[in-house]
Amino acid sequence: MENYEIKDLIINKKSREFRNAIEDLEYVDIALIIEDLDDEYQVLAFRMLPKNCASDVFAYLPLETQEKIISNITDKEINNIIEDLYVDDAVDLLDELPANVVSKILSNAKPETRSLLNQFLKYAEDSAGSVMTCEYISIKKEYTVEQAIKKIRRTGTDKEGIYTCYVIDASRHLEGVISLKTLLLSEDDQIVSDLMDTNFICCNTTDERESVTKLLQKYDLLALPVVDNEKRLVGIITIDDAVDVIQEEAEEDFEKMAAMLPSNKPYLDMNVFTLFKNRIFWLLILMITGMITGAILEKFEAAIQTLPLLVSFLPMLNDTGGNCGSQAATMCIRGLTTGEVTPKQWLKVWWKEFRVSILISISLALFNFARIMIFQRSMDVNDRLKYALVVCLTMILTIMLAKSIGALLPLFAKKIHLDPAVCAAPMITTIVDCCTILIYFGIACSVFAI
Amino acid sequence: MENYEIKDLIINKKSREFRNAIEDLEYVDIALIIEDLDDEYQVLAFRMLPKNCASDVFAYLPLETQEKIISNITDKEINNIIEDLYVDDAVDLLDELPANVVSKILSNAKPETRSLLNQFLKYAEDSAGSVMTCEYISIKKEYTVEQAIKKIRRTGTDKEGIYTCYVIDASRHLEGVISLKTLLLSEDDQIVSDLMDTNFICCNTTDERESVTKLLQKYDLLALPVVDNEKRLVGIITIDDAVDVIQEEAEEDFEKMAAMLPSNKPYLDMNVFTLFKNRIFWLLILMITGMITGAILEKFEAAIQTLPLLVSFLPMLNDTGGNCGSQAATMCIRGLTTGEVTPKQWLKVWWKEFRVSILISISLALFNFARIMIFQRSMDVNDRLKYALVVCLTMILTIMLAKSIGALLPLFAKKIHLDPAVCAAPMITTIVDCCTILIYFGIACSVFAI
Repeated sequence: MENYEIKDLIINKKSREFRNAIEDLEYVDIALIIEDLDDEYQVLAFRMLPKNCASDVFAYLPLETQEKIISNITDKEINNIIEDLYVDDAVDLLDELPANVVSKILSNAKPETRSLLNQFLKYAEDSAGSVMTCEYISIKKEYTVEQAIKKIRRTGTDKEGIYTCYVIDASRHLEGVISLKTLLLSEDDQIVSDLMDTNFICCNTTDERESVTKLLQKYDLLALPVVDNEKRLVGIITIDDAVDVIQEEAEEDFEKMAAMLPSNKPYLDMNVFTLFKNRIFWLLILMITGMITGAILEKFEAAIQTLPLLVSFLPMLNDTGGNCGSQAATMCIRGLTTGEVTPKQWLKVWWKEFRVSILISISLALFNFARIMIFQRSMDVNDRLKYALVVCLTMILTIMLAKSIGALLPLFAKKIHLDPAVCAAPMITTIVDCCTILIYFGIACSVFAI
Repeated sequence: MENYEIKDLIINKKSREFRNAIEDLEYVDIALIIEDLDDEYQVLAFRMLPKNCASDVFAYLPLETQEKIISNITDKEINNIIEDLYVDDAVDLLDELPANVVSKILSNAKPETRSLLNQFLKYAEDSAGSVMTCEYISIKKEYTVEQAIKKIRRTGTDKEGIYTCYVIDASRHLEGVISLKTLLLSEDDQIVSDLMDTNFICCNTTDERESVTKLLQKYDLLALPVVDNEKRLVGIITIDDAVDVIQEEAEEDFEKMAAMLPSNKPYLDMNVFTLFKNRIFWLLILMITGMITGAILEKFEAAIQTLPLLVSFLPMLNDTGGNCGSQAATMCIRGLTTGEVTPKQWLKVWWKEFRVSILISISLALFNFARIMIFQRSMDVNDRLKYALVVCLTMILTIMLAKSIGALLPLFAKKIHLDPAVCAAPMITTIVDCCTILIYFGIACSVFAI
């Protein structure tokens, strides 16, 4: 059945047909259909969902729709959802709701759910604690493989990650990790402590979520245990949440590098005013720095008046400088994000970029020299040579400078604990612009003796 | 033990101490140590590895080091590696080796390995076939849960993904999918056909690997079955490979948007000439288009000579236009990549950007108006008003145009099956530059009656 047919069933309140129609659909696809409905039908559709899949579909809805539904259903319905959601999804929701709704939800929740949610809510937004879940399976090291598998089969129903088991002692200290694969491939009577990995990778609740997802990626793990400062196991981070974090971090870098404040809402869901807010800040900053470039140009008013042709080479020089700078900056910023480059390697990075800039600047300068000599026939040879000299020298110096600034500025930003994507990428074009103009008119004034 | 101590053990050929030292390390960390050695010691270190972990460590080495090792070890050693590697890793390696080495490896391999490798080598580089692996577990639908678990425990050792089982008929048609979780949480005597999911998500060998990773991400899957045109199961794609693809695709977009040809080698591993090659193409194109902007400026030589102050506002106007354009373009390109935006939604996207551009352009124009009126005191009020009028009008028109071009060009590129990141992002600044200059001098000439 097509999506629009299912939507018709909702709008016409045909509950039974609707339930039949969605029986074979994945939760995420049902969520997409509901998301696509007009506001007034979203709550209706949610209420028509079969009980056993309501909270699963709910988890896939965008926060906006979740809020809308929460504010339109009864306390009892809210409670059912909260109890059914995995803790990490519930916390994401609570983080966004207004404080009075949160306290209402918390006061209605079961005591154990409430204390769990409260504990999770205290983790900082970008910490490992904020993306972890506590639905993991813990076993004791004295267990045999048979006992361990039995425990998994008995308690696995509501666990998000059942493919890795965590071995903890009486005070919940993490002693080892054992995968379900290892358990299944061992003999029934082997002892967990002989099989478990005691050299496991783990992270702390306060670690940055970005560095944690790097660990999952580097070691090809399905889940990573999270411990507190006393090394007690408090949760796990699963690969599917890590994938979302990786994607989000990349999006944020894209937005920052295009001079926008990052946001974690999808583009089409952001309203015009939010987009305006995210963009105006950097536009204003960069416009003001653009004025500095303008002020520098003003100083060369005399030169421009004498040789207005000089201006016509400026866009090309500025563009090339800016492009060279952002090429180098992009490579460095991404290298820093993926952990390939560290600020300590600045000399290595700069040396690489410097050699690249020699190759590039000489090629482009030669191209320009030929062009000016061939196409500017309206001037006499002497003038043509002078223009070619000024443009080519500026080109070479600008490109070398742009590549060096592009490579070093992000590393420096990282070194002094600023975000390289934020402070380096948008600024580089402007900085290079200023330098280009100073170099260009400096050389021009001395060559043409103005 | 610190890494440099382990390196000393390798260099001094202390095999036994080396093996003890690495016993507790993860394969990827051992690979990082070997990668960091000077060329002459890499093969030595590889040969010192215990037999049971050699190929696991090998899989984590970068292709360059793999090639170096392959060309320095005996045929028999090569064969052991190839037989031990998961098929997808072996294929990645063979893809990069020179043809004569590949045929030597293939002719030495066991017949079944050879035919498998040959089959995998025929998939296109960006297809699902090229990232899949064939180490999956298949079961029959008549199995009981007990039989299925037994089969997993018996055959799981050399399977990459054991957490999802695939139900196939006699001619290998995929009939259903069942997770190990479902199996474990069901009673021993239940029948697989009653439990399996027949509404599974799957993909074709020829699907783009980018769209396949989106499926894994959307449905939170650990593995996705890959079928051929006759719906026969040929392999699976696991989440850890998908994570790498997601990361690679983001890197590629970053490089394309900063006017570079994409590469999948890490930055520091690329030599200067490769970096030069990747960058010079777009720099040249953009320099030539920058010349067009220059040629347009030349047309306004008279205006510049009469009012050289006009030039000093140009950098600010150009920068702002370029930034506005790339903000809109970045949002659209990423929306297209993540699948959130489609070319059909062009009107919706444009309308959003248009309203944003009104807010932005009016704010920035007001700011400029105030600045010119307050700070350009050297001119009389009449002249100041004229300059303010020209700058503000240009600002408003440029921003509206930049946002529209930035939003629509990527969508148009996608529509005509070009890569939006390649053809839209680097071009937008240049296109906007040309338009800005035409608008600016057009308005200036009529206001100042030049």
